[in-house]
Amino acid sequence: MEPSLISPINPDTIAAISTPPGIGGIAVIRISGPEAINVVSKIWKGRNLEKMAPNSVAFGKILADDGQPLDEVLISLFRNPASFTGEDTVEISCHGSNWIQREILHRLVDAGARPAEPGEFTRRAFLNGKIDLAQAEGIADLISASSRNAHRQAMLQTSGVFSARLDSLRQRLIEFASLLELEIDFSEEEVEFADRRKLVDLCMEILHEVGRLADSYSRGKAFKEGIPVVIAGQPNAGKSTLLNLLLQDDKAIVSNIPGTTRDIIEDTVEIQGTLYRFIDTAGLRSTDDTIEQLGIDRAIQRLKRAAVVIWLIDLSAPLSPQIDLIREQSSHLSSEHSPIFLLNKTDLVSPDTLTIARQTIAESLINPSIRDNHTPDIIPSCADSIIPFCADSGQGEQELINRLTAVTASGRESESQILITNARHYAALTAARTLLERIPDQLENGLSADFIAQDLREVLHHLGQITGAITTPDLLASIFTRFCIGK
Amino acid sequence: MEPSLISPINPDTIAAISTPPGIGGIAVIRISGPEAINVVSKIWKGRNLEKMAPNSVAFGKILADDGQPLDEVLISLFRNPASFTGEDTVEISCHGSNWIQREILHRLVDAGARPAEPGEFTRRAFLNGKIDLAQAEGIADLISASSRNAHRQAMLQTSGVFSARLDSLRQRLIEFASLLELEIDFSEEEVEFADRRKLVDLCMEILHEVGRLADSYSRGKAFKEGIPVVIAGQPNAGKSTLLNLLLQDDKAIVSNIPGTTRDIIEDTVEIQGTLYRFIDTAGLRSTDDTIEQLGIDRAIQRLKRAAVVIWLIDLSAPLSPQIDLIREQSSHLSSEHSPIFLLNKTDLVSPDTLTIARQTIAESLINPSIRDNHTPDIIPSCADSIIPFCADSGQGEQELINRLTAVTASGRESESQILITNARHYAALTAARTLLERIPDQLENGLSADFIAQDLREVLHHLGQITGAITTPDLLASIFTRFCIGK
Repeated sequence: MEPSLISPINPDTIAAISTPPGIGGIAVIRISGPEAINVVSKIWKGRNLEKMAPNSVAFGKILADDGQPLDEVLISLFRNPASFTGEDTVEISCHGSNWIQREILHRLVDAGARPAEPGEFTRRAFLNGKIDLAQAEGIADLISASSRNAHRQAMLQTSGVFSARLDSLRQRLIEFASLLELEIDFSEEEVEFADRRKLVDLCMEILHEVGRLADSYSRGKAFKEGIPVVIAGQPNAGKSTLLNLLLQDDKAIVSNIPGTTRDIIEDTVEIQGTLYRFIDTAGLRSTDDTIEQLGIDRAIQRLKRAAVVIWLIDLSAPLSPQIDLIREQSSHLSSEHSPIFLLNKTDLVSPDTLTIARQTIAESLINPSIRDNHTPDIIPSCADSIIPFCADSGQGEQELINRLTAVTASGRESESQILITNARHYAALTAARTLLERIPDQLENGLSADFIAQDLREVLHHLGQITGAITTPDLLASIFTRFCIGK
Repeated sequence: MEPSLISPINPDTIAAISTPPGIGGIAVIRISGPEAINVVSKIWKGRNLEKMAPNSVAFGKILADDGQPLDEVLISLFRNPASFTGEDTVEISCHGSNWIQREILHRLVDAGARPAEPGEFTRRAFLNGKIDLAQAEGIADLISASSRNAHRQAMLQTSGVFSARLDSLRQRLIEFASLLELEIDFSEEEVEFADRRKLVDLCMEILHEVGRLADSYSRGKAFKEGIPVVIAGQPNAGKSTLLNLLLQDDKAIVSNIPGTTRDIIEDTVEIQGTLYRFIDTAGLRSTDDTIEQLGIDRAIQRLKRAAVVIWLIDLSAPLSPQIDLIREQSSHLSSEHSPIFLLNKTDLVSPDTLTIARQTIAESLINPSIRDNHTPDIIPSCADSIIPFCADSGQGEQELINRLTAVTASGRESESQILITNARHYAALTAARTLLERIPDQLENGLSADFIAQDLREVLHHLGQITGAITTPDLLASIFTRFCIGK
């Protein structure tokens, strides 16, 4: 990693509770900074910490202000630079009562530590060159990751694989720039060190790579926030039953997000390692209430980004109003979404009714929808998107999950692929791409190499901001306030 | 400690998340048992754990089932018997995401560990003779302690001071029993090794000590659960304002307990290290609703145990209905409570009104109340119990707190005193006391030493149950299910 422009000057010693808030068996309080060992020693009764070997653990007591034992604890000691922050660090593993955690933190502050700000330990790790900025952001993602895929992406970012890719891009840009410099230096002499064609090819290669990363953002974001799946259908079609089935199936309910003040319209579930965000369209109805309308407008904005729509069709109810409803609600949906038609309540109808419904749906909805909106590779087979379903018997459940994972093309094959999951990285890559895109034309049109070199410097700046090779205090502040306290 | 009757036979290896549930900077997963190091080694990439020095820390990776890194972690390693449980123990300090915590636990189970039951680590510490039962219970109290005094009592219990006191009692009982045995052995020969008077004195001494401990229970319980303070007064007298003031003053709101389904009537606050449980009497009103009446009956049961009653008197409202209300509500209160009369809203009345109110209260409430219900040492000075008060100006606030701490006689002087805080200990001590109480009479009346020796064995049994010198699987189960998982 390149040295940071912003180095810690005379850093103070910080302390924070690093484990989740609340009561537990144990809690960990972390202290980092040049005075970490000295600060803890003032409230510690046990082995001499100054003489303790790095990376070792000692048992002893933390003392209250009256000299009485406050708690029996384990202390782990790390020495600069072989610690997470790169500074001297002490971790106190105490009993997990709220009162003890709070009191030990008070005692540490009395002894000369300062309560840490959110992400301040990771910030110090960055400032001390232990990790770069993209890795630091990976740590925040790692902590909030709630599915295997989101976690895998965060691990890739934390491990530095993404940073290494960016560094290699920057190296190639520098290579490109130096070829260009030669052109500039010898331009009067008509010497051609690298022919223009080669420069254009190199630029296209870099552009391709930057573009691929930038384009992976919507996918990476979906991995992190959940692939948006709309569940739609008329009242009593079985939306809640379906959602409960999906939730129950995996027991990995991640959250209930109240979409408007009136309805819970979202729920995220991990299925086979991928996070799905199920959005209920129940809230979509005509209303005169301004506040409610605002909520519906927001919901519609979310629907426009849906990747999949599960249309629940109640076989026991008349079909044509349901087809009309699907047509109407489709107007709110992404033109690139994949539909799944779930013919629900097969237990209530005859096989003939099911066959007719299947044909009607195929003719009135799928065929035109493929012609109008969908490229063939999104719906490889129309028939697979119509699934007879019965919640009670479990009929169609596995087919639904297979279909869901097939159309979202998630799964193992993407795991080692680097995806952009961070809006800041996306913005930087997009800015770099915009600049890179005009270079081939400029080269071919014989634009002065000076101008092109200026663009390249900007590209290097944008890419450098991702890993923090180039940074500003404001940028750091905006990144590290996303962290929890104690990390 | 005496060896336990129930020893762990071929214990398996257990694992649990030991830090509070939820998301944080870091989380700690603890593994204990003969296979702890072997289990972790299977999912670990880093230094050879088998060769790692005890009480040391290593950095490395936990691997997912596909061999990819799941997380970068710190591992602390402890060797039997120098660990909390007395077994080989590994602590994994990982990133504090829910997903990572869950996955690492899954991996450990796949590798041969069993998810730990609540309190199972502490249970093993007990079974391996690292701590006795009273110390184990002290750990549970330590984790739930929410005030300085409750914490101090739990620390005393955890540290073994209480156990040592009980052991010394048991030693004196054994000494007593052996004197008695001599009497039995030589009873035919009229030999007197210790005169009866000495035996009675020794028994009285032990009884005094057991009685003192048992009697400390109401005090100890109040330390742990909060000293019950009732806030009473007519509607709009300022009860909520007062409560908010007390809460705001200390910022240490511990909990809001919904007393009935209709009203929050309790709130605990730590003031100067002591936990107070404020109980609002707003719920006390005549009602025809059976459910509500049940709630009120429960509330009245709580009020009967009040240690202090703060009567809020609204100076700006007519005085005599308020005096009537106090008389009426007093019927529900403990006959041993200390009243505090807060003459509220001094800013709304003239000094003359205040003087008259003070006199009226003193004459109509305090003087008879002292004569009828109170011993002088509970209310050292009547005048101190009438406090002019104004929430806006802060008048009377400090006097109220002084009065509160004075009448509850809490504070520093009790800190090193051992108090019983545990219902189980109280029951055992009370049973022991009942048996001990009849011994002096039996001795004086020349009852056969055999019978007395039988009583003494029962006393030893009761006291032995407290520290776990005598125990049963049921007793252990009931104690350790109180613990959180991971401790």
